[in-house]
Amino acid sequence: MEFSSKLLENAVYEMSQLPGIGKRTALRLVLHLLKQPGEQTARLSESLHKLREEINFCSSCHNISDTSLCEICGNPKRDRGLICVVEDIRDVMAIENTGQFKGLYHVLGGKISPMEGIGPQDLTISSLVAKAKEGAIGEIIFALSSTMEGDTTNFYIYKQLENIKVKTSTIARGVAVGDELEYADEVTLGRSIINRIPFEGSLRVS
Amino acid sequence: MEFSSKLLENAVYEMSQLPGIGKRTALRLVLHLLKQPGEQTARLSESLHKLREEINFCSSCHNISDTSLCEICGNPKRDRGLICVVEDIRDVMAIENTGQFKGLYHVLGGKISPMEGIGPQDLTISSLVAKAKEGAIGEIIFALSSTMEGDTTNFYIYKQLENIKVKTSTIARGVAVGDELEYADEVTLGRSIINRIPFEGSLRVS
Repeated sequence: MEFSSKLLENAVYEMSQLPGIGKRTALRLVLHLLKQPGEQTARLSESLHKLREEINFCSSCHNISDTSLCEICGNPKRDRGLICVVEDIRDVMAIENTGQFKGLYHVLGGKISPMEGIGPQDLTISSLVAKAKEGAIGEIIFALSSTMEGDTTNFYIYKQLENIKVKTSTIARGVAVGDELEYADEVTLGRSIINRIPFEGSLRVS
Repeated sequence: MEFSSKLLENAVYEMSQLPGIGKRTALRLVLHLLKQPGEQTARLSESLHKLREEINFCSSCHNISDTSLCEICGNPKRDRGLICVVEDIRDVMAIENTGQFKGLYHVLGGKISPMEGIGPQDLTISSLVAKAKEGAIGEIIFALSSTMEGDTTNFYIYKQLENIKVKTSTIARGVAVGDELEYADEVTLGRSIINRIPFEGSLRVS
């Protein structure tokens, strides 16, 4: 693409560095900003800059937070003996939305992925192990995605916790509520059958 | 969506104001920026801010340009008697890519659209009419999209130019090169037949 303006070219280039945004989409977004009042661009630019500069992570669960201890970790009503291990803040938001979990979280900040150059030392695993060693945690629930990377991460952490007295569990996998069996993939359906639960338990809604 | 951080919420909100970007995508983009080095966010934020603040338009064709006269308008090799009227900079880039046009452009900055509150006075139509009145233009080519708004804009400008001695034309519409006739929509195929050209002309490649 040949641009008539260096300023425009720079903005489009930087925008196209975002995942899933190509040059054409970037140009469309930038031209949209040019048609809107200048304040919109100023606000976008300012909020991104501010976020990146002033970002803070909870000292306990490593979630993004404006305070040194996040709202969840600071809430006296949450069960401090129950830790749910997740990949990032989106998973925390998804689980919080269900309203079914009353414990605390531990945000890993990613998954072990040799392909992307992410090793165990890039995640907050040692902090989780240290927490477990303190002995105040009753159960650690793994809620990582069931991909190759997720399973590897799960297994790595499990190995680290082996000599520590703490119960570990993983969230249930199975056919989604409302889904028809015939359309479920065989691995999922297989897991649903193997990990079947007593009938009265399946009717429990928190 | 409930966010654990106001900074994050602001950034996601501003990002989601862009067309075609919902809250979930905005969150994904913002979290991606957080995982990248801080300079990337700084560059994005800076380039958008700079573009919006220092944006300049060519005094002749109204295209985005860093100089007061854009490269095309300032190029002595271009045919000053031929003006191609387009909607925005993307159309200029598309036509320039063909390498088939050696004249100058006139960027309207949009189309007449009562639905979006865009009237003729919001576009650079008067400047085009003034250029035509000077008498140095031999032909004005309309290259607007053939939608309701495009046709309205076309017709409005055509009416404005009625009493001025200038040739007007519109780009050819028809079945795309390489397309099979049976899949072409009937309006396009109909136009291809009505606006047929002498056989030898169709073989000409620049």
